Amino acid sequence: MATNITWHPSLSRRERFALRGQRGFTLWFTGLSASGKSTVATALEQHLLHLGVAAYRLDGDNVRFGLNRDLGFSEAHRQENIRRIGEVAKLFADSAQVAITSFISPFRADRQLARDLHAASAHGADDPLPFVEVYVDVPIEVAEQRDPKGLYKKARAGEIKEFTGISSPYEAPENPEIIIRTHENSVEECVAQIVQWLEEKDLIPTKTATAATAADAAGSAALAS
Amino acid sequence: MATNITWHPSLSRRERFALRGQRGFTLWFTGLSASGKSTVATALEQHLLHLGVAAYRLDGDNVRFGLNRDLGFSEAHRQENIRRIGEVAKLFADSAQVAITSFISPFRADRQLARDLHAASAHGADDPLPFVEVYVDVPIEVAEQRDPKGLYKKARAGEIKEFTGISSPYEAPENPEIIIRTHENSVEECVAQIVQWLEEKDLIPTKTATAATAADAAGSAALAS
Repeated sequence: MATNITWHPSLSRRERFALRGQRGFTLWFTGLSASGKSTVATALEQHLLHLGVAAYRLDGDNVRFGLNRDLGFSEAHRQENIRRIGEVAKLFADSAQVAITSFISPFRADRQLARDLHAASAHGADDPLPFVEVYVDVPIEVAEQRDPKGLYKKARAGEIKEFTGISSPYEAPENPEIIIRTHENSVEECVAQIVQWLEEKDLIPTKTATAATAADAAGSAALAS
Repeated sequence: MATNITWHPSLSRRERFALRGQRGFTLWFTGLSASGKSTVATALEQHLLHLGVAAYRLDGDNVRFGLNRDLGFSEAHRQENIRRIGEVAKLFADSAQVAITSFISPFRADRQLARDLHAASAHGADDPLPFVEVYVDVPIEVAEQRDPKGLYKKARAGEIKEFTGISSPYEAPENPEIIIRTHENSVEECVAQIVQWLEEKDLIPTKTATAATAADAAGSAALAS
C-alpha cells in the first residue's frame, strides 16, 4: 500500500493553528440570567462561522445534560461544573476553534480558575491560550423585567432557592476584556463590538466583505448538495 | 454602528457542517497498552490536518491531567473517565471536527456507552453523530515485548495492580468498524487504511494530491509568517 503520509511524534499548537489557518481561544460570557448572554453568544457563533472562523458554543443545552449531567447545585458541584467547562473550552481552544461559553458563572473565584487553566496552557514555544471574559452587563431590574422563563418571579416567590441576583450574589467581573450592554445596544451591535475587539487583538483575521460572501456562498452550496 | 450580521435563534448541525465544509464524527481507538493506538492516532490527526480536515486528538496527556484530573482508578472512576471522554468527543464531533480518542478503554460496556451517547445525538432533521470504533489488534506478546514504558514488566512483577491484559481483562470489540494491526502494517499503512475507509463512507472528502499540496503549502506559509 503506497502512502504519502508524513508525521512527527508531536504537533505543537503553533503548527496546528498554522495548518488550520486560525488561532484558538476562549470567549467566556458571564452575566445574570436573562442578561442576553446566550442570545449574543448564538449570534456571534453564527457570524464567526459565516466569516469562515470555526466557533462552537458550550452552554446549558449541550453541557448540563451531557458532560455535567452528574452534577447538582451544591456549592462543590457548581464549582465542578465551571471547572469542567473551563477544561473543555481549553480543549476546544487548543484545537484551533473559538470556544464560546455561555453560563451565568456568578463567582469570581470560579471564573478565575477557568482563566488560570488557560494561562497555564503554555507548552514549550507555545503561548498560553487566550481567555477573553465578556461581561454582559445589564441592571438586574432589566433582567428581571425580561424574565422570559419566569425564573425571577419564582425566585421572588421563594420557589427557587439561591437564585443569582435575588438570593445569591452575582460577583461582577473587575477587569473583563469586553463589556456589552444588551439594554443599550442591539444584538447585532454587541456582536459587532466583540468582533471588532477580536480583530484589533489579531485573534481573528480582519473581515472583508469578500471573505464573508465567499463563506456564505460555500455554506449555501454545501447545504444545497 | 452599522452591521451586516444576520442570525437565527438556533443553528442545526447540518447547517454547521455545511458552513464548515466538513462532517463531524468520532474515531474511538481501543487496544492494549503499547498496541500502537497513540502512534497511529497522532499520525492520522496530522494527515487529516494536512488534508484540510479539522481533527483533534483526546488522549491521556490532555484529558487525564485536565478534565479528568479528579478521577482515580476505582471501577466507578474508570467508567466516569470513559463517559466524560465520550461526552467531550461528542461535543467535538458536533462542532464539525474529527474527534480522535486514544485510550485503552478495555471494557465493552464503557465503549458501548460512548457509542450510545453518539447514537442518541440525533435532533430534529439532524442524523446522529457517527461513532467509528478502531480496534488496534495486536497480540499481547507483541505489546509486552514492545513495552516502551516498562509497564508490562512492572505489572508482571506485581508493582502495578489491575493492568489490562495481565491482571485485568481486555474485552476485544466484537464488531469494530475498523481493525488495524500495527505488527503487520506500518503506521503509514494503518493511517492509509483508516483514511480509505472514511473516504468510502463519505465521512471525509476524497483526497486529491492537489488538496493535500494546497494544505501543505498553506500550512508552511502560515508557519513562516
